[in-house]
Amino acid sequence: MCEANAYLLMEGREELIMESVDIVEPEEENNWRLVNVFGEQKYLQGRLKGMNLVDHKIFFEKISA
Amino acid sequence: MCEANAYLLMEGREELIMESVDIVEPEEENNWRLVNVFGEQKYLQGRLKGMNLVDHKIFFEKISA
Repeated sequence: MCEANAYLLMEGREELIMESVDIVEPEEENNWRLVNVFGEQKYLQGRLKGMNLVDHKIFFEKISA
Repeated sequence: MCEANAYLLMEGREELIMESVDIVEPEEENNWRLVNVFGEQKYLQGRLKGMNLVDHKIFFEKISA
């Protein structure tokens, strides 16, 4: 399986938001819908910072208010 | 290997931009740097429309001028 883990970078650390993410879709500006391989869904606010698929990682960055 | 293929959606069809993408990084607004597992690099202009990692697909959408 080729899913990835989604992390939110905040204050210098990586917080794991969701494991085994299959689907990533933008909902609106800096708002993302994540769905994992188990069909669970989460919404995440942040800027997409990058992904490294071979390492199974997707990074989002918290946006300062 | 868990890379994906990057497609640009334009005028109702999917154009394959790069195969075996490992790294996706935003460069600036709607501008993306793609690097594949062979170390080749491409820049792509478009809106990230969604990804389906289990299907190994990343979709970008052309932005109307």
